[in-house]
Amino acid sequence: VFIRNIWYPCAWSHEIGRSLFERWICNEPMVFFRTEAGKPVALYNRCVHRRAPLSKGQLIGDRLQCGYHGLEYDCSGKCVKIPGQDAIPAGAAVKSYPVADKWRFLWVWPGDPDKADASLIPDLHWNDSPGWVAPGDTLTIGCNYLVDLDNLMDLSHLTYLHGRTIGTPYVSEFPSTTQVIGERVNVTRWMIDRPAPPLFQRVGGFRQNVDRWQIIDWTAPGNVVIDVGCAPTGSGAPQGDRSKGIEARSLNLVTPMTERQTLYLWSYCRNYKLDDESVTKTIYEDVKRTFFEDKDMLEAQQHLIDTDSPQAHTISLRVDSGPMQVRRIIERILKREAQGEPLAA
Amino acid sequence: VFIRNIWYPCAWSHEIGRSLFERWICNEPMVFFRTEAGKPVALYNRCVHRRAPLSKGQLIGDRLQCGYHGLEYDCSGKCVKIPGQDAIPAGAAVKSYPVADKWRFLWVWPGDPDKADASLIPDLHWNDSPGWVAPGDTLTIGCNYLVDLDNLMDLSHLTYLHGRTIGTPYVSEFPSTTQVIGERVNVTRWMIDRPAPPLFQRVGGFRQNVDRWQIIDWTAPGNVVIDVGCAPTGSGAPQGDRSKGIEARSLNLVTPMTERQTLYLWSYCRNYKLDDESVTKTIYEDVKRTFFEDKDMLEAQQHLIDTDSPQAHTISLRVDSGPMQVRRIIERILKREAQGEPLAA
Amino acid sequence: VFIRNIWYPCAWSHEIGRSLFERWICNEPMVFFRTEAGKPVALYNRCVHRRAPLSKGQLIGDRLQCGYHGLEYDCSGKCVKIPGQDAIPAGAAVKSYPVADKWRFLWVWPGDPDKADASLIPDLHWNDSPGWVAPGDTLTIGCNYLVDLDNLMDLSHLTYLHGRTIGTPYVSEFPSTTQVIGERVNVTRWMIDRPAPPLFQRVGGFRQNVDRWQIIDWTAPGNVVIDVGCAPTGSGAPQGDRSKGIEARSLNLVTPMTERQTLYLWSYCRNYKLDDESVTKTIYEDVKRTFFEDKDMLEAQQHLIDTDSPQAHTISLRVDSGPMQVRRIIERILKREAQGEPLAA
Repeated sequence: VFIRNIWYPCAWSHEIGRSLFERWICNEPMVFFRTEAGKPVALYNRCVHRRAPLSKGQLIGDRLQCGYHGLEYDCSGKCVKIPGQDAIPAGAAVKSYPVADKWRFLWVWPGDPDKADASLIPDLHWNDSPGWVAPGDTLTIGCNYLVDLDNLMDLSHLTYLHGRTIGTPYVSEFPSTTQVIGERVNVTRWMIDRPAPPLFQRVGGFRQNVDRWQIIDWTAPGNVVIDVGCAPTGSGAPQGDRSKGIEARSLNLVTPMTERQTLYLWSYCRNYKLDDESVTKTIYEDVKRTFFEDKDMLEAQQHLIDTDSPQAHTISLRVDSGPMQVRRIIERILKREAQGEPLAA
Repeated sequence: VFIRNIWYPCAWSHEIGRSLFERWICNEPMVFFRTEAGKPVALYNRCVHRRAPLSKGQLIGDRLQCGYHGLEYDCSGKCVKIPGQDAIPAGAAVKSYPVADKWRFLWVWPGDPDKADASLIPDLHWNDSPGWVAPGDTLTIGCNYLVDLDNLMDLSHLTYLHGRTIGTPYVSEFPSTTQVIGERVNVTRWMIDRPAPPLFQRVGGFRQNVDRWQIIDWTAPGNVVIDVGCAPTGSGAPQGDRSKGIEARSLNLVTPMTERQTLYLWSYCRNYKLDDESVTKTIYEDVKRTFFEDKDMLEAQQHLIDTDSPQAHTISLRVDSGPMQVRRIIERILKREAQGEPLAA
Repeated sequence: VFIRNIWYPCAWSHEIGRSLFERWICNEPMVFFRTEAGKPVALYNRCVHRRAPLSKGQLIGDRLQCGYHGLEYDCSGKCVKIPGQDAIPAGAAVKSYPVADKWRFLWVWPGDPDKADASLIPDLHWNDSPGWVAPGDTLTIGCNYLVDLDNLMDLSHLTYLHGRTIGTPYVSEFPSTTQVIGERVNVTRWMIDRPAPPLFQRVGGFRQNVDRWQIIDWTAPGNVVIDVGCAPTGSGAPQGDRSKGIEARSLNLVTPMTERQTLYLWSYCRNYKLDDESVTKTIYEDVKRTFFEDKDMLEAQQHLIDTDSPQAHTISLRVDSGPMQVRRIIERILKREAQGEPLAA
């Protein structure tokens, strides 16, 4: 069960054009394209006639023609032409999903279209602003999206899983604090007077110790913005001065495709050395490598979850408070939705 | 559930010889071979001892010896030798299926052997007569055989799926008429005064417009003979004169292997340019390419059927009358069989 | 359901070292390693925190550190360190399995550790004694371990499946006798005055006829020792004189990994031509080839078992008495275990 009345990031905006693009989102097959005027469209990807995938058809102007028997749909999902007959039966339509381009991502709303309000899309302006450069990519992970969110909401795993790039021995030693602000979850960790991690050393040239921060901000369903950075120890008090260090926003957008497939759109936004292609390249490669380490672990973990009894004994740790709050809020939203209550203010 | 008391085409006759040939038909594992005298034999492909596949054994004269523990079966499926013991237990036998060579195909009867009457095999003489040349081949498709029959009984899809070979923009514009004759279904479409499709142009050299026909004749379970051809417009009235054009019989024999695997034996029989190898080659390659387009669509469609609710809303079109009649008659035969009623006259 | 209170051979001893080694045994994920002092350890391979596979972690001295969030376990499976917190919750532990190195194999006891007594490991000294040379290897077979045991307890299949190596036309002609001795099963077959099989001819140079024996000794759960050999006919009475022929012990250790995956550790121990590397090589390659023939048949058989009705009619043969006794004793042990009765004396 997934939240329905919410925006899901479903692709990079530039991926959607005049070629039909197929992707499952929240257990529903969807086909994406743009109109001749460039407006994005998302339709249910099962022809109402014989369930053929519309993504195997073609665009005729702004109509999507099924590649099997030629039914044509307009952008609202209404069937507007049936070859060989004039009458179009009642109910000849597929669902059309509200979509929006925002922050260079495409967002889709699987629920009640009347409730879709683009202003509910969270702020990810770092991905689309002057003064920021943001290499990124797409990954699919063979696990449930909640398992992936557990990963993102507790960065103590950097020490053990990502020692080659962004992990350092000390991350897990420093405590983090979790705050719930309405239906946001914020997890903050400061690491004081320690060496910079390999990536920051590579791109920032830090020789001396730094004060380093990770400030995670989650909004439903799976938008995780991590404010990361470091500044020389002593450059400010009680922590290093952000303006004297480097900072970035790590965007991690996690969307359920199916119960066991998760779409992972990531972007690493920085505001320094904007024109240095080699820094961009180093960041892209390090982050990509890091996320493949996560993918490998998450898929192995999902297999061991699926082959275990759901009642098996497990324990929770202090570092689980962020992940737990996220799961709790998702449960709350699902319950609210099941009871037909309005969206949260 | 599949019809049992009926002939299923299960291979090309030439494929069955003194090598053991394994194929699932109607959810049953079967092994096929020929006796030394050339008579075809089909046995249940699970040894009665430990369920090993008999097709991994060998022929000793006309006996099939299991490759695991050496039990030997005669052509009636009776176990006639057990190594290391003289007594053969009661019930030591596997099912033997009636088989028949006809029209260069091998046919198998999964049901009551006493009811198997070779004269019930439908007429496909074009595949095995002087004056006709018939290249063909075998395909397996990952879908239920009814989904494949839907495809064959409504050729309006040629316009959308097969534009490179036998499709033309106008096929779906012309209406077809469906007739039920006893337990046959006949779907006829005439397309008047239009260009010939690419394949007919290539092999028939038509420059001017033609009158083109598609006359589909289905008999249970999955034998679809399509009389196709075209003649110059004006060569006859109210339609072109068949004798002044070219014609062919497209044989499409569709047999369930399992619920999700379909055997597709096809042959394209023509009565012109018999000795022109290049025409044979062009036809073979065009038809093969065409059927791979079907395979690709049908497997994608089956996946979307299987991941959808069976109760999901779908619509029927005018072009579905052929497919619908076929499904209706198959239902009727299954019901008759379940009630133990005799075969249709 | 598998027997719990018993030793299962789970790897070659030399395979376990300071690298983490992952293997499912009896439907449980296990991780194996050795302490710095060389003692073997087996732990449950699911972290008690988030179920990550511990085998993706690393050894820190004799502690196993989870590669996801850094929990550390000692060799008893107790969690002894949790990064970022001092308190260790009650129940923070994974199961630790008794293990033992014996006869160059590693053995694991999935059941009650208090009952694990290394003296219960069966005698396989041929694999680890002066005067014997024993090439061997590991195979996994996609079938239930009982299906594999059926294979090993009835060697009449050599005639049909292994004609290129150890099979001869006459094996299945000679009767075997089955004896149950406590909870051992012994199947003996003597084949008198016949040519030696290909492998014995290759390594023993027998030109004249031999008396050949196969004496199978099974102990639970899946330890099959086959005393095989041959001696010139007439060299003794009533059978050939063992001291004038060649003999070997074929060790076949069969362990359930899951319901449909079986671990097969094999070794072929001989006491002649100890230094002749070419004999070792010939034996290794012939036996390996032989067991791949078994694997191919067993996996095909398992598929036909799984697609058949469990109630389908099958027959039993005289040669099945060995396999049947084995299944009967395993049932008896399972029943005893389910009722909490003590191990057999």
